[in-house]
Amino acid sequence: MYEIGKDLYTETGWEVLKRSYEAAQAITEGSNFMIGNGFMGYRGTFAQDGKDEYAACIVTDTWDKADGKWEELSTVPNALFTELTVNGERFGVSEQAEDFERKLDLKNALTASTVTGQLSDGTTVTLSEEKFASYHKKHTVFMSYTFTTSKDAEIELKTGIDFDVWSINGDHLQNHKPFTHPDGSGVSCTTVSYEDEVTVVETCKLSVSADEKPYQFTDGMGRTLTFKTEAGKPVTLVKSMTIYSGNDVNYPKDEALLEARKLGSYDEEKTAHEKEWSRLWSMYDVIIQNQVIDQVALRFNIYHAIIATPVHKSLPIGARGLSCQAYQGAAFWDQEIYNMPMYLYSNPEIARNILTYRYHTLDGARRKAKRLGYDGAYYAWISGKTGDELCPDFFFKDVLSGRDIRNHFNDWQIHISPDIAYAVKKYHDVTGDDAFMHEYGAEMIFEIARFLSSHAVYKPLKKQYEFMRVQGPDEYHENVDNNAFTNYQAHFTLKAALDLLANLDQDVIARISDKINIKAEEQELWQDMIDSLYIPEPDENGIIEQFDGYHALETIIPAKKVTERLIREDEYYGYPNGVTVFTQCIKQADLIQLFVLHPQLFDRSIVEQNYDFYEPRTLHFSSLSPSSYAIVAAQIDKVEEAYKNFRKSVMIDLLNTNEAVSGGTFIGGIHTAANGASWQMVVNGFGGVSTSNGKLHLSPGLPEAWSGYAFNVQIQGETVHVNVTKEQVSLTKATDSPSELTVNIYGRDKSLSEKTTVINR
Amino acid sequence: MYEIGKDLYTETGWEVLKRSYEAAQAITEGSNFMIGNGFMGYRGTFAQDGKDEYAACIVTDTWDKADGKWEELSTVPNALFTELTVNGERFGVSEQAEDFERKLDLKNALTASTVTGQLSDGTTVTLSEEKFASYHKKHTVFMSYTFTTSKDAEIELKTGIDFDVWSINGDHLQNHKPFTHPDGSGVSCTTVSYEDEVTVVETCKLSVSADEKPYQFTDGMGRTLTFKTEAGKPVTLVKSMTIYSGNDVNYPKDEALLEARKLGSYDEEKTAHEKEWSRLWSMYDVIIQNQVIDQVALRFNIYHAIIATPVHKSLPIGARGLSCQAYQGAAFWDQEIYNMPMYLYSNPEIARNILTYRYHTLDGARRKAKRLGYDGAYYAWISGKTGDELCPDFFFKDVLSGRDIRNHFNDWQIHISPDIAYAVKKYHDVTGDDAFMHEYGAEMIFEIARFLSSHAVYKPLKKQYEFMRVQGPDEYHENVDNNAFTNYQAHFTLKAALDLLANLDQDVIARISDKINIKAEEQELWQDMIDSLYIPEPDENGIIEQFDGYHALETIIPAKKVTERLIREDEYYGYPNGVTVFTQCIKQADLIQLFVLHPQLFDRSIVEQNYDFYEPRTLHFSSLSPSSYAIVAAQIDKVEEAYKNFRKSVMIDLLNTNEAVSGGTFIGGIHTAANGASWQMVVNGFGGVSTSNGKLHLSPGLPEAWSGYAFNVQIQGETVHVNVTKEQVSLTKATDSPSELTVNIYGRDKSLSEKTTVINR
Repeated sequence: MYEIGKDLYTETGWEVLKRSYEAAQAITEGSNFMIGNGFMGYRGTFAQDGKDEYAACIVTDTWDKADGKWEELSTVPNALFTELTVNGERFGVSEQAEDFERKLDLKNALTASTVTGQLSDGTTVTLSEEKFASYHKKHTVFMSYTFTTSKDAEIELKTGIDFDVWSINGDHLQNHKPFTHPDGSGVSCTTVSYEDEVTVVETCKLSVSADEKPYQFTDGMGRTLTFKTEAGKPVTLVKSMTIYSGNDVNYPKDEALLEARKLGSYDEEKTAHEKEWSRLWSMYDVIIQNQVIDQVALRFNIYHAIIATPVHKSLPIGARGLSCQAYQGAAFWDQEIYNMPMYLYSNPEIARNILTYRYHTLDGARRKAKRLGYDGAYYAWISGKTGDELCPDFFFKDVLSGRDIRNHFNDWQIHISPDIAYAVKKYHDVTGDDAFMHEYGAEMIFEIARFLSSHAVYKPLKKQYEFMRVQGPDEYHENVDNNAFTNYQAHFTLKAALDLLANLDQDVIARISDKINIKAEEQELWQDMIDSLYIPEPDENGIIEQFDGYHALETIIPAKKVTERLIREDEYYGYPNGVTVFTQCIKQADLIQLFVLHPQLFDRSIVEQNYDFYEPRTLHFSSLSPSSYAIVAAQIDKVEEAYKNFRKSVMIDLLNTNEAVSGGTFIGGIHTAANGASWQMVVNGFGGVSTSNGKLHLSPGLPEAWSGYAFNVQIQGETVHVNVTKEQVSLTKATDSPSELTVNIYGRDKSLSEKTTVINR
Repeated sequence: MYEIGKDLYTETGWEVLKRSYEAAQAITEGSNFMIGNGFMGYRGTFAQDGKDEYAACIVTDTWDKADGKWEELSTVPNALFTELTVNGERFGVSEQAEDFERKLDLKNALTASTVTGQLSDGTTVTLSEEKFASYHKKHTVFMSYTFTTSKDAEIELKTGIDFDVWSINGDHLQNHKPFTHPDGSGVSCTTVSYEDEVTVVETCKLSVSADEKPYQFTDGMGRTLTFKTEAGKPVTLVKSMTIYSGNDVNYPKDEALLEARKLGSYDEEKTAHEKEWSRLWSMYDVIIQNQVIDQVALRFNIYHAIIATPVHKSLPIGARGLSCQAYQGAAFWDQEIYNMPMYLYSNPEIARNILTYRYHTLDGARRKAKRLGYDGAYYAWISGKTGDELCPDFFFKDVLSGRDIRNHFNDWQIHISPDIAYAVKKYHDVTGDDAFMHEYGAEMIFEIARFLSSHAVYKPLKKQYEFMRVQGPDEYHENVDNNAFTNYQAHFTLKAALDLLANLDQDVIARISDKINIKAEEQELWQDMIDSLYIPEPDENGIIEQFDGYHALETIIPAKKVTERLIREDEYYGYPNGVTVFTQCIKQADLIQLFVLHPQLFDRSIVEQNYDFYEPRTLHFSSLSPSSYAIVAAQIDKVEEAYKNFRKSVMIDLLNTNEAVSGGTFIGGIHTAANGASWQMVVNGFGGVSTSNGKLHLSPGLPEAWSGYAFNVQIQGETVHVNVTKEQVSLTKATDSPSELTVNIYGRDKSLSEKTTVINR
């Protein structure tokens, strides 16, 4: 048994075990031990839990605004609700239980718990729950609920659908219409803003016969089952919960009932689900030799990245996945920059799905651009169903005055658009998927280039284009000019646009141009911007200034010292008047993130100098930060520093290291970007994997703590299994078919003509 | 006797009388009753007063930074200090006095007071003071100090130099070196930052003989005079205080002693001084018929405008004049826009002096531009001796958190530069002073045009130039784009620059260009900007948007309602997070100020529509605001509304209506811009005086409260006395010499061929 943290263990690197129950950890553990499948996230709560224990099932594509401010996903009625009473005494998970264990089975994507306790009459009860959100049938969650009494006992089991679940910003579902049907009981309701129907259907099967008395009230419906147990003989209740919304199908209720009717037994469904997960792990698993804690932490992150990602249709990956409603269940730049790479290199179909979502929301991006006085596509900082901006003007509070703060994430953080163009270009580079580029990608890149050219300003005396009043990845400094990250990404995008215009078939260009009318003068402007956009270059010390005037700000090293200036601990640190604003203290990787995206762009010495300069100035107060530093540290052979950041990043959720509230806003839940970045830290970081013009580059390093690691990487349709040991790197192609794949390893081209190629390290 | 306010009277319209003494009013009355001559301001305190009563004499050209933050003028040792003891009991101004009156004699620029009180032994004492800051000998202040006792009494008179005077931000003078000399006692000291010498010399003459015992300690020096009085027989002490600094002359001490030696008697000096003031009033006086309160208030303002204005050399007019150190004794845009017009139309030599100061500080403006990444001349928002920016980055406090606020008056409020160009152009227009334009003005205009072209950005897709990230006259909204006032002023400047290039003699251009190298491509850029600078035009309702996005802000009418949102009364209202920032509530005239400067630019209906739109959105929380509204209201024949604003503006100091502290910073003292604007409200407002291409325009209106008014206006060297009555306007030329002066009155050209021309209204 390996100890991950307090009462937190793993046995094999495939599971997370918690050996004590703490009510105060309900928010965190509900996220960490959750189950999901990209359609829904069912929080890691217990059958008995209600809203006070943060029980919730968050469902994709159910956006709604109930409080007039925050549009977020709805949490649906909980059809797994079950409450056990033994001999008139309620029994369940509690801090007083004699024995408690909960488990997240990563391999099979199951969450389970067992609790044992004694009643006041001396009867010992053992209660076990197991749940999974079927990856095979994505609309359904299953639960097996088993208990045993040490003596014969009178049982009352209340089980049904609890309508009163946790929701952060108002109750999204209303007009509850309960129904019973031979295929299952259920409830249909509608969202507040859009009146979308959501139906939840429950099936319920007890292993013994019981008296049944239905109940129904405003906050729930169900039945009370009364029966007797025999000492030591387990009783099992199997439940299913099927969810459909009007955004999934035309007739959610019919569809849910139909699915309920067709469900197999618990074991049949579990087997089908586990088979799916076996397939998933065969693609995404990264094996670490000799370090079980790292292994389990990495798998925990990959597991959460997977369950956060919608694959049933094109929908965003939420910044907190489906673990809760924080960050509105919406996509940020995190999606393309932190989550997409794992898919891109392991299962590019999902990467394509992610980008297709961005194509579907292109009109929303066009609307945002127009509203703010720009042309082309300015993607939403917080993007939901339509791609219209979900980020409110005011969200943080100045806790010292209680007054709202106007942050400009929604209008100044322009790098979101070129980041998406970058992802499109990268997707094409790795996959060679011309069809996607023709159908979707090129139009997106053109519209983003158009946006950039409408945002840029020309300084006639300096004879250069600049991007003024932006916010880079470091969100504490707003209203800056020429954020290096932004300008480089914009330059990359403009080049990509002109490359496409130069290389695409004329009929493809003609079709797109028919639609969006790319004018000759626009192309000239893009070319002029490529030639004359101000690109901050390394200065005489090799340092690229994060933005104009950054160097003139107060230096505080280490950055953490700035926190001594806080008046209250929960103050917002950033713009307009937080403690970091007039200092060089940055929230997260900003320039360093540029090196993650473009590892071949700068000489290694430049990367080193900038790493050394910016690292002590970085607070790492974003979950996006340590992973970027880890990847770049690995690039420049600071392997142990990379490992330190790797550990920090993979433990964010497991050890609950990040603040759950900032400037008065709840930002807790699973850190989905960090989950996705875990894979990158090993593959792109230690493994040194990148692509340049469609060619795979590798330069694997190895932290001292590991004796080796292995992962898969797919390039141009070919999957290569990479196994790194202290002595060598072996590359094994998945298929036997001959291919002419050439990779660049440690700076040298190598043809993978054999099935396995071995290179000494 | 006419009552101006509580205990505040006038008899003839030439004096302000106060009939009660309130210690709590010491700051305000010390400013209101002050004397000065543009070299120094001696606060309206009493001979007995020290720093606790805010006694101070503020001297031009003594800038110093004693606290590491605020560079301000020094306050010099007070050589008029005198303390009276009668029969062992101290006597002076106090709230317990039987009788008290103080007077500001506007006609003769004297401040005086008389106090009568009874001692505990029954003796009645009457003490009178009279002081003037000689306009004839600008380095010297005189005091006559007379007292009478009702019975014979023992007198102790302590009189000398008090070093310990009021200073806002630290003690500026140090290393005090007292000296005695046959010509006068004195003290020499040096400033903290620049080690400039400042010497104050005292002379002292008692009308009776007395025993004299000198004293000297760290905070002062002088003598104690003991003698006896006879009942009812007045005793007079006459003192003078002469001040020189190392910035005035090479040997301040020698110069001060020399001046002291040459001083005439009190009466001689007073006569010379009064003669000067008679000359001043002959130029600046504005006569109001039948409204003595308005008359005295107007003269009070003109008086303060005069004494705030340095005429002995080219130095800035402080935003609080020389009434105290607030606003650092430095020039703001107020100087050219609010104070210069009175001089321009009455005594253009002073206007020339004001602009010469700006020419002398051109290098400071060049340094500021360069430091901020621009070219040309970016004038300091707060301009002292050198024209380097005196405005600190942080000056207001967020009183809710105690944290400093970064306001951007010093880097975003760019209109200061084109405002100065406007003043240069206007000066030339009114005076025809080509020599000034050749020597100074053209270079300033070119350098300002250059600055503007380096600040402007070009939006390629919109094909227009814009000014981004600026702050207009309304200081509550910072970081705005295309502030209409700024863009129009910039456009005016660029046109003025090209006009000069087209019309100046080639040798003048060659000489200037030799110095500042005006490149052909620059001229092309200026032309291009004239053609393509975005100039906000009236929309379909005739409204010109104050800046991009103003209309989208929250409307609160009347603006004052926004104050209900204050958490604390002393909060700063503006950027970044004050209560007005996200609303349309504006601090002061912004767009309306444009109409003041360019009364012929827009159709009257546009002016009316914008007046009606912006007025209810204006908080008038700047002393610059009501006068601008008054002038524009008069332009559009809202004469009674103009009169209401006139009253508000002329009473700002007299009735102490404005806040003395904002965001934790002291901003009290005399409102010099409002003083200057008083003259404008009558002449440019009610009188409708303006110039266009060197021709005088008039269109006099008359508020109901007045039966008439009269003023002088000088144009192209000719002075015209304008007398407005209910029935007619008469224009009388000052000289008999024939001239071909043509003026435009009520829209029609009229040749003033006779000495007096009468037009019916």
